Amino acid sequence: MSRAMETPEPPYFAAIFTSMRRAGDEGYAGMAEKMVALAKLQPGFLGMESTRDGEGFGITVSYWESLEAIKAWHLDAAHGEAQRLGREKWYESFALRICRVERAYSWPK
Amino acid sequence: MSRAMETPEPPYFAAIFTSMRRAGDEGYAGMAEKMVALAKLQPGFLGMESTRDGEGFGITVSYWESLEAIKAWHLDAAHGEAQRLGREKWYESFALRICRVERAYSWPK
Repeated sequence: MSRAMETPEPPYFAAIFTSMRRAGDEGYAGMAEKMVALAKLQPGFLGMESTRDGEGFGITVSYWESLEAIKAWHLDAAHGEAQRLGREKWYESFALRICRVERAYSWPK
Repeated sequence: MSRAMETPEPPYFAAIFTSMRRAGDEGYAGMAEKMVALAKLQPGFLGMESTRDGEGFGITVSYWESLEAIKAWHLDAAHGEAQRLGREKWYESFALRICRVERAYSWPK
């Protein structure tokens, strides 16, 4: 199964979330799965790519039609609860960068 | 050691490179190290974050001062050779997205 997302022609928007996990699951895997399922239901959601290595450093990029769609997801109540637990239990550190995708290229075409 | 990059206040630019590796090293690790060292010497380079999981799916995000800086790196001769080998030997598939970072947030501050 390909884990790369098909996205439309730019412009569209991306949220780059980089994070370092703490040790232990503490309910993380279940919540992560729930957040992916919920994100897919958000208006304007285009897709998501995610990976994390053995040291616990992960990058998740989600793709969106507009900045408004990203903002609505950021303010979603269930997502807000996950954000709170993220700071309390799961992440040592994280960063979020909101971007406008200007150009895209993939191989093979 | 933190693997998260300190980046300046937006706007700046990001190149999101997502890829699926083929099995076997085939000179990949050495070249990856060389490309990171070379990227750091490029004018306008701000930093890079990278991770890959056990399935071989990786995301590397590099940060740049301008679109021109990204273009110059794309056209660098040594980088071009790595791109050719990437298609021939190392990657099953990849995508590159060039973005303008509009907003950024990190935790802890």
